[in-house]
Amino acid sequence: MRDAYHEELDSIGDDLVEMARLVGSAIGRATTAILDADLKLAENVIAGDEKVDTLQHELEAKAITLLARQQPVATDLRIVVTSLRMSADLERSGDLAQHVAKLARLRFPNTAVPRDLHSTILEMGQLAQRLMAKAAEVIITKDVDLALQLEQDDDAMDLYHRSLFQHLMDDRWKHGIETAVDVTLLGRYYERFADHAVSVAKRVVYLVTGEHADELAAESSDEGA
Amino acid sequence: MRDAYHEELDSIGDDLVEMARLVGSAIGRATTAILDADLKLAENVIAGDEKVDTLQHELEAKAITLLARQQPVATDLRIVVTSLRMSADLERSGDLAQHVAKLARLRFPNTAVPRDLHSTILEMGQLAQRLMAKAAEVIITKDVDLALQLEQDDDAMDLYHRSLFQHLMDDRWKHGIETAVDVTLLGRYYERFADHAVSVAKRVVYLVTGEHADELAAESSDEGA
Repeated sequence: MRDAYHEELDSIGDDLVEMARLVGSAIGRATTAILDADLKLAENVIAGDEKVDTLQHELEAKAITLLARQQPVATDLRIVVTSLRMSADLERSGDLAQHVAKLARLRFPNTAVPRDLHSTILEMGQLAQRLMAKAAEVIITKDVDLALQLEQDDDAMDLYHRSLFQHLMDDRWKHGIETAVDVTLLGRYYERFADHAVSVAKRVVYLVTGEHADELAAESSDEGA
Repeated sequence: MRDAYHEELDSIGDDLVEMARLVGSAIGRATTAILDADLKLAENVIAGDEKVDTLQHELEAKAITLLARQQPVATDLRIVVTSLRMSADLERSGDLAQHVAKLARLRFPNTAVPRDLHSTILEMGQLAQRLMAKAAEVIITKDVDLALQLEQDDDAMDLYHRSLFQHLMDDRWKHGIETAVDVTLLGRYYERFADHAVSVAKRVVYLVTGEHADELAAESSDEGA
């Protein structure tokens, strides 16, 4: 049987996983909303972000209570502090999904995304959702290899982002300034969302190994050399 | 004489103030770099961000040591946890100043900002710097009124931001897509930088009053009604 202390720690972990699940779903639905100009879905994502914020506040309160009552040290202390940082990443990811949905609402009944960029934005949205699903899995399993994978997956996001910019800068761009501004912001939202998912995974790596993910990656590439 | 415990707490506060000072200076210099196409200054800002990151790591280590050794409760515990959150805001602000500087470097020897938007970007940069200076003062003085002022100052940032967009969407926009993309991102960087300064101030309000800044603002506007 777990003691009350570890139950509280677990409960913080559960909140993190739930937050990751919510924001992963939110970025997926926001992407559909902006590609399909689906106002109802956009509103749904926008309203849903409150739940993420509430979970973060609850998590923070739990963490502070746990620190005060149980006064953890060493690894357990690092888990609590790191959980606070992860919850901030997840809360911010929720905001970014909400930004995508707000842009969908702003441009309704039109779509902010021109036809020839649909597939790129779809892939960015899907990748963002997958990255967050993996981040949730990393929180649950503490699987360091999976966590390090996220950084590589994120390279694909950078490629999509670059491809967006190439489209924008192409002389044949015919969609005007407003759409260029929308697409620029959208690209930024997805890229930042992915950064936060990677950041969550990196923090788990640090918890498990005591080493920063970048150092581990450098070591494993040294071995490969 | 202060005891070791409060000296450690003070030292965390000093680090926060130093971080705010560094990123405030960085956004000011980054703005000059992008308006004057000053490559040397841009490089200087880009390289300087490492110091902010180092300070944040040190602050985090200090906070964890303090939590483990001193096991603070109640207000002191909240101060430490909130300091961790503030340091994340400040570290991110440093990244945003660095983004402005990187854009200056990318477009050198040109400037990313067309002449007719110089004054708006200059004002956004100056406001960002002032907001961060005020945030630092709020950390030092714990002045709740000053903290609440920051939110009002931030309204001016939103106005500048809107004015940027109006320029962009104007049919007379003659600067092409690349510049539109640059200006869109710049606007976003300054806006987010300001958000983080406001967030730092709000966290101090919460520490001092136990109430969230939004609730306090609502109360005082109720009183005014």
